[in-house]
Amino acid sequence: MKHFLLLLLCCVLFNFNAVSQQRARDLGIKPGVLPPGTKNSITDVAGVKVGHTTLIKGDSIRTGVTAILPHDQNIFQQKVPAAVFVGNGFGKLAGTTQIEELGNIETPIILTNTLNVATGINAVISYVLNQEGNKDVRSVNAVVGETNDGYLNYIRGQHVKTEDIISALENAGSDVMEGNVGAGTGTICFGFKGGIGTASRKLPESLGGYTIGVLVQTNFGGNLQIDGAPVGEEMGQFSFSDRIMNSADGSCMIVVATDAPLDSRNLKRLAKRAILGLAKTGGIESNGSGDYVIAFSTSEQNRIPYKTDFNLQERTLVPNDLMSPIFMGAIEATEEAILNSLFMAETMTGYKKRTIKGIPLEKVLPILKKYNVIKE
Amino acid sequence: MKHFLLLLLCCVLFNFNAVSQQRARDLGIKPGVLPPGTKNSITDVAGVKVGHTTLIKGDSIRTGVTAILPHDQNIFQQKVPAAVFVGNGFGKLAGTTQIEELGNIETPIILTNTLNVATGINAVISYVLNQEGNKDVRSVNAVVGETNDGYLNYIRGQHVKTEDIISALENAGSDVMEGNVGAGTGTICFGFKGGIGTASRKLPESLGGYTIGVLVQTNFGGNLQIDGAPVGEEMGQFSFSDRIMNSADGSCMIVVATDAPLDSRNLKRLAKRAILGLAKTGGIESNGSGDYVIAFSTSEQNRIPYKTDFNLQERTLVPNDLMSPIFMGAIEATEEAILNSLFMAETMTGYKKRTIKGIPLEKVLPILKKYNVIKE
Amino acid sequence: MKHFLLLLLCCVLFNFNAVSQQRARDLGIKPGVLPPGTKNSITDVAGVKVGHTTLIKGDSIRTGVTAILPHDQNIFQQKVPAAVFVGNGFGKLAGTTQIEELGNIETPIILTNTLNVATGINAVISYVLNQEGNKDVRSVNAVVGETNDGYLNYIRGQHVKTEDIISALENAGSDVMEGNVGAGTGTICFGFKGGIGTASRKLPESLGGYTIGVLVQTNFGGNLQIDGAPVGEEMGQFSFSDRIMNSADGSCMIVVATDAPLDSRNLKRLAKRAILGLAKTGGIESNGSGDYVIAFSTSEQNRIPYKTDFNLQERTLVPNDLMSPIFMGAIEATEEAILNSLFMAETMTGYKKRTIKGIPLEKVLPILKKYNVIKE
Amino acid sequence: MKHFLLLLLCCVLFNFNAVSQQRARDLGIKPGVLPPGTKNSITDVAGVKVGHTTLIKGDSIRTGVTAILPHDQNIFQQKVPAAVFVGNGFGKLAGTTQIEELGNIETPIILTNTLNVATGINAVISYVLNQEGNKDVRSVNAVVGETNDGYLNYIRGQHVKTEDIISALENAGSDVMEGNVGAGTGTICFGFKGGIGTASRKLPESLGGYTIGVLVQTNFGGNLQIDGAPVGEEMGQFSFSDRIMNSADGSCMIVVATDAPLDSRNLKRLAKRAILGLAKTGGIESNGSGDYVIAFSTSEQNRIPYKTDFNLQERTLVPNDLMSPIFMGAIEATEEAILNSLFMAETMTGYKKRTIKGIPLEKVLPILKKYNVIKE
Repeated sequence: MKHFLLLLLCCVLFNFNAVSQQRARDLGIKPGVLPPGTKNSITDVAGVKVGHTTLIKGDSIRTGVTAILPHDQNIFQQKVPAAVFVGNGFGKLAGTTQIEELGNIETPIILTNTLNVATGINAVISYVLNQEGNKDVRSVNAVVGETNDGYLNYIRGQHVKTEDIISALENAGSDVMEGNVGAGTGTICFGFKGGIGTASRKLPESLGGYTIGVLVQTNFGGNLQIDGAPVGEEMGQFSFSDRIMNSADGSCMIVVATDAPLDSRNLKRLAKRAILGLAKTGGIESNGSGDYVIAFSTSEQNRIPYKTDFNLQERTLVPNDLMSPIFMGAIEATEEAILNSLFMAETMTGYKKRTIKGIPLEKVLPILKKYNVIKE
Repeated sequence: MKHFLLLLLCCVLFNFNAVSQQRARDLGIKPGVLPPGTKNSITDVAGVKVGHTTLIKGDSIRTGVTAILPHDQNIFQQKVPAAVFVGNGFGKLAGTTQIEELGNIETPIILTNTLNVATGINAVISYVLNQEGNKDVRSVNAVVGETNDGYLNYIRGQHVKTEDIISALENAGSDVMEGNVGAGTGTICFGFKGGIGTASRKLPESLGGYTIGVLVQTNFGGNLQIDGAPVGEEMGQFSFSDRIMNSADGSCMIVVATDAPLDSRNLKRLAKRAILGLAKTGGIESNGSGDYVIAFSTSEQNRIPYKTDFNLQERTLVPNDLMSPIFMGAIEATEEAILNSLFMAETMTGYKKRTIKGIPLEKVLPILKKYNVIKE
Repeated sequence: MKHFLLLLLCCVLFNFNAVSQQRARDLGIKPGVLPPGTKNSITDVAGVKVGHTTLIKGDSIRTGVTAILPHDQNIFQQKVPAAVFVGNGFGKLAGTTQIEELGNIETPIILTNTLNVATGINAVISYVLNQEGNKDVRSVNAVVGETNDGYLNYIRGQHVKTEDIISALENAGSDVMEGNVGAGTGTICFGFKGGIGTASRKLPESLGGYTIGVLVQTNFGGNLQIDGAPVGEEMGQFSFSDRIMNSADGSCMIVVATDAPLDSRNLKRLAKRAILGLAKTGGIESNGSGDYVIAFSTSEQNRIPYKTDFNLQERTLVPNDLMSPIFMGAIEATEEAILNSLFMAETMTGYKKRTIKGIPLEKVLPILKKYNVIKE
Repeated sequence: MKHFLLLLLCCVLFNFNAVSQQRARDLGIKPGVLPPGTKNSITDVAGVKVGHTTLIKGDSIRTGVTAILPHDQNIFQQKVPAAVFVGNGFGKLAGTTQIEELGNIETPIILTNTLNVATGINAVISYVLNQEGNKDVRSVNAVVGETNDGYLNYIRGQHVKTEDIISALENAGSDVMEGNVGAGTGTICFGFKGGIGTASRKLPESLGGYTIGVLVQTNFGGNLQIDGAPVGEEMGQFSFSDRIMNSADGSCMIVVATDAPLDSRNLKRLAKRAILGLAKTGGIESNGSGDYVIAFSTSEQNRIPYKTDFNLQERTLVPNDLMSPIFMGAIEATEEAILNSLFMAETMTGYKKRTIKGIPLEKVLPILKKYNVIKE
């Protein structure tokens, strides 16, 4: 009985509208024109895996870790072509200059909170150093991004530990939980509870047949639009709505995966497009927002071996003039992933008893109907 | 009488729906939350002037020139802080590396067609060399952008002449014509007739009170959304709608002016945001699109004299944490300027008797009502 | 007889120390450790051709054109991977953003004077539009660089004409003239007469066997060092030697060609290294210097067809960890090419009867001996 | 007695040629033409402090920490304008994107080994969070650079601890130790023992009177030149001298401080010039080298308060056309700082009993005399 009450309390605190959690598409929201992949997830890109560690403890710990693995072999030994686009650089993404220089990533991608980036780097280094086949490795370019969950989470406590990172890496799989999980546990988006979201697009064969998958950690503001409907305005909740300066800036980390065989140059162009998806949700890349996109290609033939034995590398690449539909896929998947992060998140109470509400369906659905985004 | 018939014919060919030309806001479309300036134009930024030369001759010439002057004094002697952001660099904007290096522009900005950029450069050089006070000048960084109007215009003819550029500079004023004028005479946007558009935002005093003005030359594609309404989808007219590759890429030149006292670093950040406005209209920065943003600040106190006499420069600058509302202004004004370019453009027939229709209000307005963008 | 006297006069004016013109290596100066190619020229990279038009007319015209062709087929139809690095962007290199975006160049490279860049662009456009097979082309990204020869040349006269550009393209071959020729006719380097220089390095087979060729147009200042010897200091001729501000900034255009199969990312890295060669001659990338490097790969298998027919592209590429010796080759060849431009240039009198002396061997050789750069 | 023997042993292992340790200038090597500051040190820039923690323990630990403090107040509350230039991005410098975006640094700069960057980040975060006046801080952009000392140091052991970082911060002062200290304890440069070096230049009043100070952590290769003398060649010790591929790449971290009032744009240009100084020592920015320059201005009037209270900022800035002598100062000071790191380092034996010799004066001085760098 006591347990039941405790459970009930938990539900009240963290999960009370759990029944209404639905992905955007299940609510009838279908941004864009391209079809999603099977799971409408970054893991529709074959081989990509995602794992979370969610830390909800006591009154003040609301944070976590999300790990994205480009493939399930030794990534350090089989690096993948990659690129980063910086939408707004007020953030701490580790690893950027080496990705830019060498055109690849050599570790899984870790997302966490701002003050635990170093924990993430160290954990990734440990993970790589201890991986079979890596015993001679002396340099590791860990890719660790973050957003600041310091409103709901006691971030100065740096509560993410090495084992939390390792756990996210080890429990990674192809079913991606969304909302208040992993690195999205304590984040806020457009004034509502944000979190982790994912989505994908599958191009028709005539346009290449490629899959583009996106995962986001949403913690940013602006003027929320849902598939075009001015939800922020209708609810009177948008940046500068009170005509005063507002420092709740947040950030957005965006990871784009594709099986299209792209080199780092075209991956950088692809990364740049993901920000257009963020724009369509009403994001403004505010001054304080660390908005970063990491894009990588899983194409097996284009992997970069750690030891090349000084051989030339054979590549098969998408030419520039086939890129546009892939760009469109990234824009649409990013928009939908952000919406999923909102609709899958739930009201959260945390540090200093602050509460951030999940996006209220009872108010939003009527707006979406008013603007014909969904049917009556 | 003959003249009357000729005039009538012209109207039929170029202006037949002239009566319905209205700016977006006059149709009830009001993207964003911030108020426009007095004229809802880039010229709301005090001192900015715009001039056009429109070339419509015979069957095949549909091109022109648009000139933007940051202020009405000698710009070479009183340079303005400036920056460029490259959304997608498949274009020929002259002057970029010097703007990036020195953080300023020293000439008016010229927009024209792709194959007349050099004409623009030479005309600007002549203009500067001949300006009073410039007799010792031996180096001029002309800023000349372009989009490709080669579908409606016989672009290989390079029909813009030096005098057309000079004329645009000399007739510049604060009333900006939109649509099929100047550098927008032959352009195409989302499959409809594009052209020149402008808009502005005026921040409330509590957010700084600055004005942000935008002028666009629209010649790009994607998936048209008008203030959120999926017009492209509803009309079945969007990129890859036929599931085949489509090379009609076009480009978009965006000029952002502000009276906010910004240095080149924050102007670059501002330029980056204008692309978010393009995203909200459905632009995708397709492979073939040359999407560039040039941003400058008109703030008198921060002008850069040609000859500094080796004195230090006093500056008064907006700090980073006051930038976000200025960013929002640029996003909103860009979105509205693009819409104005569409709504102010008219059906045009040109090279090889090709016709591109102006956006059909009779079809679009019902869609906008359906999605509640405008009232019934 | 009259002709003889005229010839003599010309010799006095322009060529009086012609007999002493020798390339650096012929004087015993051998910077670096790698061997040069057969001709010690950019044309050691198979297929590369160089042409000049030299304009020396009357008292005031001292300018010209240098054209570099990556291969002898239709370059627009068979583009080459390329990249640009901007050492200091106070210059007007046309074409940069498209090279950066698409990773290739599609025209020959033209070098000329600052105020004739537009002439160069227009000439290249004409050249491309009129080339067999290009009749549908409507967009051309002309690559045209410059330095400012306005001290010796009446640059405001814009004396380079379209036919001069075309002539340089048409007379291109594999023997490269150096010194006061082409785009180097009126340039100044370290206070001496500069001009065109070229050099190359051939890697041993164990390091890949590639050739790296460099061509420079030298018009910059600093503190001249010749293979390490402090020639500027010894002669009391270096920037700020008089402890006053000095605006004679000039510029340096550097073109790097290689047969190594590199993509644009590694070509950009290669371009960056060429500036290290400039540094070794004592260049400082002064504020007013437009120091640009354009690097391209001639590798046939990696050419980019204008029409891809939407096929994937097969590439064979040098991996990152084989790049270092290629970098070293670019550094050494750039250093030697700059020295060649100095030693092959001759005293020139031009605009306003100004004279710039060729580097005086009678003073320099003793310095080189003193510092053991060459043998007694 | 036992202690004496132990001391003796230490001397044999680490310090046996300590007596010959001299700075380059004390040996008569005076690169460039500008005079050094009083201490010929980065600390000639008023307010700059440097601290080291040197870890030499047992057979395998040869690493450490170097901290550079831009001023002695709370840096987070009084940020300094700053910029980063990436010479070659194969490295892990933390903090780059935020410096680029916001144009400032808000923490001391920490240098350490590759696998302890995260330790550095966490220590800096702790340091900032615990500093008086920072109790509300929830985001810290730690600037932590590294080179890989894994040849002499058992780097996989990650032996640098938080307290080592804090110690370097706390013991910082204006006398800078060079050679095998701090982050240079285990580094290798041109095949000799590298380490920490510093130098400065003081411009004459007529050129602005500014001081430019540089500190380097040297761990890179190439073809050593000492003030022009080809020492690498003469000793047969340079990259690819054996005509085989060579992965001993290393890195170079360069910190440039100046009291010139520069904004981040001109600081970025200044940072770019420091690499020219590296080039003059024979560095080639090899593929595996992480060559980064961090430049900051100590100018008090231009500090950026954490809380701006939404006020505009008054700035006094050096204009572009006064930058060239400051550039020259950075080039010269970087060259000399690298030489100091070599001449002040000593032979070191470490991990796996590997030994790297200090640069052997008995061989180098004759070469310098042969090339007239120093007098007989």
